[in-house]
Amino acid sequence: MSPERYQRINQMLDQRQLDLTLCLENVHKQHNLAAVVRSADAVGVHDVHAVWHCKKSRISGGTALGSQNWVRVHKHRSIDDALQTIKQQGMQIVVTHLSDSAVDFREIDYTRPTAILLGQEKYGVSEQALAAADQQVVIPMLGMVQSLNVSVAGAVMLYEAQRQRQLAGMYQRPQLSEAERQRVLFEGGFP
Amino acid sequence: MSPERYQRINQMLDQRQLDLTLCLENVHKQHNLAAVVRSADAVGVHDVHAVWHCKKSRISGGTALGSQNWVRVHKHRSIDDALQTIKQQGMQIVVTHLSDSAVDFREIDYTRPTAILLGQEKYGVSEQALAAADQQVVIPMLGMVQSLNVSVAGAVMLYEAQRQRQLAGMYQRPQLSEAERQRVLFEGGFP
Ligand SMILES: C[S@@+](CC[C@H](N)C(=O)[O-])C[C@H]1O[C@@H](n2cnc3c(N)ncnc32)[C@H](O)[C@@H]1O
Ligand SMILES: C[S@@+](CC[C@H](N)C(=O)[O-])C[C@H]1O[C@@H](n2cnc3c(N)ncnc32)[C@H](O)[C@@H]1O
Repeated sequence: MSPERYQRINQMLDQRQLDLTLCLENVHKQHNLAAVVRSADAVGVHDVHAVWHCKKSRISGGTALGSQNWVRVHKHRSIDDALQTIKQQGMQIVVTHLSDSAVDFREIDYTRPTAILLGQEKYGVSEQALAAADQQVVIPMLGMVQSLNVSVAGAVMLYEAQRQRQLAGMYQRPQLSEAERQRVLFEGGFP
Repeated sequence: MSPERYQRINQMLDQRQLDLTLCLENVHKQHNLAAVVRSADAVGVHDVHAVWHCKKSRISGGTALGSQNWVRVHKHRSIDDALQTIKQQGMQIVVTHLSDSAVDFREIDYTRPTAILLGQEKYGVSEQALAAADQQVVIPMLGMVQSLNVSVAGAVMLYEAQRQRQLAGMYQRPQLSEAERQRVLFEGGFP
């Protein structure tokens, strides 16, 4: 690995936000999964959780642009399984949901340890996810269409988190353990 | 048309931002075009400009969720043609571009009449577009991947504009002419 690449990866790892994650509940279209993981990488998310009923879903191919090598995608067999993992990490669970009881997404404090839950393309999030939510949030919709594309909604959420975390100086405080840093440098540095 | 639907459409039209537009330069993947127009509708954009070299591109199908009925897509044969139309309307041209000379996208005042230009999936924006730009902007990338998906980048830009315009009370000031209102009510109300 060149010294430049070594430095580039270390710099990226210094900015990784271990206490910001996404949970994808049955999001299944390849291009959406790819776009979400790509946005996650861009704002410094290190871990993404995904629940898939359908076995063949996975993140691969062109449009992820290699981000799947830099973001760890943890697969779960059920939403309960995923939620339990996230709760054990002491994160607030922010569920995106198009309902009247949801608050504007900008009202949330994303500098706290936070998991953002995104729902399925057609059916949205499940009852279990809503029951586990600390907050239900909605991105304002001022037009005729009811919902945004899921990867778009994910990115709008993530960039609000990025804005708040940048203001709070959170990208200046490295969070990664030395062991995890070495793992990524080893696996990502020599593909 | 039911009174509820009539009211719903009028309410939407009251919030349309005639002085905020997108210009898509050869964005060609169906799912990206659909997602962009859907986001445009959601933040109250009334007109979108699109340049297509390839004849068969158009916005249709499931994932646009009907937003193409509510957002006018103006097709142009060349980027110069599109830029000329936009300039005649007195808009600042904000070009999204991954370069060191680009400023952070949040530094721009989107309450001014603004056209946001998005580039092609693979090659980005053209030299002509850069030459015509009043501003070059970039959405910060803190990970390893170089760029965001184009529909994701479009939505992040649009929701920053929405945030600023909401704060400025611009969604409380109807802009649409009576003739245009009647056209949309007629065409959209009775599909
Ligand atoms: C296409 S939407 C699902 C629509 C579904 N009919 C519903 O009512 O939930 C897919 C996912 O995108 C996200 N999403 C879309 N638009 C959103 C918005 N305006 N606010 C928050 N999340 C949104 C949510 O995660 C949602 O579960
Ligand atoms: C996939 S990118 C094009 C990448 C191309 N290799 C380049 O260097 O321009 C497609 C379009 O998405 C938008 N885009 C993607 N990431 C962006 C970012 N971080 N900031 C601003 N615009 C972005 C721009 O409009 C860009 O032209």
